[in-house]
Amino acid sequence: MAQYKVPVLPGDGIGPEIIAEGKKVIDAAGEKFGFDVDWIEFPHGADHYLETGELISEDSLKELSDYEAIYLGSIGDDRIAPGVLEKGILLAARFYFDQYINLRPIKLLEGVWCPLKDKTPADVDFVVVRENTEDFYIGIGGRAKSGMSKDLLEVNRTLYNAKFGLDIETDSEEIAYQIGMISKEGTQRVMEYSFDLAEKRNKHVSSVDKANVLSDIYGFWREEFNAIAEKHPDVKTDFNFVDAITMWFVKNPEWFDVVVTPNMFGDIITDLGAMVQGGLGLAPGGNINPNGTSMFEPIHGSAPKYKGQNKVNPIATIWAGAMLIEQLGEKEAADSIVSAIEQNIKEAKVQTYDMGGSNTTTNVGDDIARILLEQ
Amino acid sequence: MAQYKVPVLPGDGIGPEIIAEGKKVIDAAGEKFGFDVDWIEFPHGADHYLETGELISEDSLKELSDYEAIYLGSIGDDRIAPGVLEKGILLAARFYFDQYINLRPIKLLEGVWCPLKDKTPADVDFVVVRENTEDFYIGIGGRAKSGMSKDLLEVNRTLYNAKFGLDIETDSEEIAYQIGMISKEGTQRVMEYSFDLAEKRNKHVSSVDKANVLSDIYGFWREEFNAIAEKHPDVKTDFNFVDAITMWFVKNPEWFDVVVTPNMFGDIITDLGAMVQGGLGLAPGGNINPNGTSMFEPIHGSAPKYKGQNKVNPIATIWAGAMLIEQLGEKEAADSIVSAIEQNIKEAKVQTYDMGGSNTTTNVGDDIARILLEQ
Ligand SMILES: CC(C)[C@H](C(=O)O)[C@@H](O)C(=O)O
Ligand SMILES: CC(C)[C@H](C(=O)O)[C@@H](O)C(=O)O
Repeated sequence: MAQYKVPVLPGDGIGPEIIAEGKKVIDAAGEKFGFDVDWIEFPHGADHYLETGELISEDSLKELSDYEAIYLGSIGDDRIAPGVLEKGILLAARFYFDQYINLRPIKLLEGVWCPLKDKTPADVDFVVVRENTEDFYIGIGGRAKSGMSKDLLEVNRTLYNAKFGLDIETDSEEIAYQIGMISKEGTQRVMEYSFDLAEKRNKHVSSVDKANVLSDIYGFWREEFNAIAEKHPDVKTDFNFVDAITMWFVKNPEWFDVVVTPNMFGDIITDLGAMVQGGLGLAPGGNINPNGTSMFEPIHGSAPKYKGQNKVNPIATIWAGAMLIEQLGEKEAADSIVSAIEQNIKEAKVQTYDMGGSNTTTNVGDDIARILLEQ
Repeated sequence: MAQYKVPVLPGDGIGPEIIAEGKKVIDAAGEKFGFDVDWIEFPHGADHYLETGELISEDSLKELSDYEAIYLGSIGDDRIAPGVLEKGILLAARFYFDQYINLRPIKLLEGVWCPLKDKTPADVDFVVVRENTEDFYIGIGGRAKSGMSKDLLEVNRTLYNAKFGLDIETDSEEIAYQIGMISKEGTQRVMEYSFDLAEKRNKHVSSVDKANVLSDIYGFWREEFNAIAEKHPDVKTDFNFVDAITMWFVKNPEWFDVVVTPNMFGDIITDLGAMVQGGLGLAPGGNINPNGTSMFEPIHGSAPKYKGQNKVNPIATIWAGAMLIEQLGEKEAADSIVSAIEQNIKEAKVQTYDMGGSNTTTNVGDDIARILLEQ
């Protein structure tokens, strides 16, 4: 019998409750498909931080790097300033393990309420591949008084020509700035992954950028996209400005197959995508390093106000669990979990509040595990 | 009789066709409400650029700065690389005239098809105030080989602590970077405008940022927001991460009254907002400098493929025209144009293809002008 060791970080808020259901369903899948998971718990999150002052130590990260896939609940707590835990744990892990693919299936399951008129599961079935280690997520920025900013402006104002320049008054005021960066290698690898994925799907890759305004960073992105596209002449491609793609996600989700996007725009459009597929309670995500340690999570947050109420939807987490075991090589078991989720939703007996029901987190987990075993 | 001189830049693609209808309706409003508009045509756009090499000269901008409000069609042409015309004309004007408010009403009119289930005009009626001169729109960026980027990283990697650092390999590769900047003054003025607007509406301002990740630039934004909010204790406020707000625009547009947003996020969420109000054919925008030269435009592009077909929807442009004459002080006439648009839509006789009809641009303009005169 295959044996897997999987580190699990339940995290904050509702994290432990949803992770418990995810483990339950994976364990059931193991029973059915003949594998066994040894869950190794890690305490990182708000409480651990408040008690010890540690977000996540290098030792913990090193230890985690022995494993192929981490199962993550959710990170974030009202007692701590926004960003501290998210950056110190979630983004730290994404960066440390160089999980350069953030894979987000946008799939409307049969029986799920979609906020869009006239759209059915046949219309909403695509994948967003979000670059996950670069762009405006590198955390470089600061504040400056006039002197520094003026120099920076003098040196850099390349966009508006000498005639018009920039009209930012820097003499008397403070400014804050932020830098985004993408590299050739970082851009190429996420695009190659996307084209490979499209080859296995419907051979269509849509790129997202804002090359008409953020021309330096996304002009580069476009060039790299074109270069990779040339190597895949059988794959259809198009460019989408990030503003426009928010419209198409709502109006024509059926246009998309694989969407490749820089990190920050990916963050934005996948939340919108989650809504189109029925809400955050149903949206899983994988942070993937194909040759290293990956990490799977629901894309929603820690919802502190629902903590301990056994109320929230565990489906995103269970689905993320399916992605996790697929990564471990248990494809059949993964498919089986997804079809048990679909069955649970179709039967429409056991649903949480966000899906219009009044059932509990544990009941949904139990029901999906039951269906899986009976399938 | 009041006399106004209004410069008009029809621009590219369908620009001249929609601007013709906008002028027609404003002229009708003038007839009815006793004012006269002298339209002063400017040739700037793709053809002018290809013929003369000029995007928009400083002389033209100086000339335009004599006027209170400019009427703009649309800019953009397939023969020219993305960004050249948009930056060289549209953004150049926004920056040159320091039009720091980009005002975008998101209002679902009675009788318009909304892509969202269960939402009615009562649910979709808010205003986005987009900062329009700073942020990632300042056009500062570039490319670098390893040497430079390494220094930059060394100096700046403040986010991930010394232990984890950044995992970007800069030794062997090229990078592209982009810088965004916001200033205290630039942030305060757009927020003050937003709170003043909320005081006249439903006393609720929602701020958009991504302070949990782009902490330098948007942490500053939040601080300024809090400072201005303190001065308006009667106004309800909240923060929205940009990823989350795309969900709420779809799920709960009724939550919003005034939404204040940094430039780039504003670009993204107002396209989504346009879709929620029925599509780009119905979405006007104003680039406003309350003490200088403003500019009004439909927020859609130049749609080159429809050029010359007398097919596209002129309503966004006509509505932008209403905003323009309101800026000139003709509030009653402006309201009258909006109500003629509403009447035209309600009668549902004369609609363009995007609204499910098969009528022409000119017929819609004629019909709205007729209704206006008969009202
Ligand atoms: C919590 C936050 C740092 C994170 C992000 O911005 O990536 C989240 O929104 C996501 O999409 O996983
Ligand atoms: C055309 C483009 C430069 C512009 C922008 O990004 O601001 C447009 O999308 C808009 O929203 O007015």
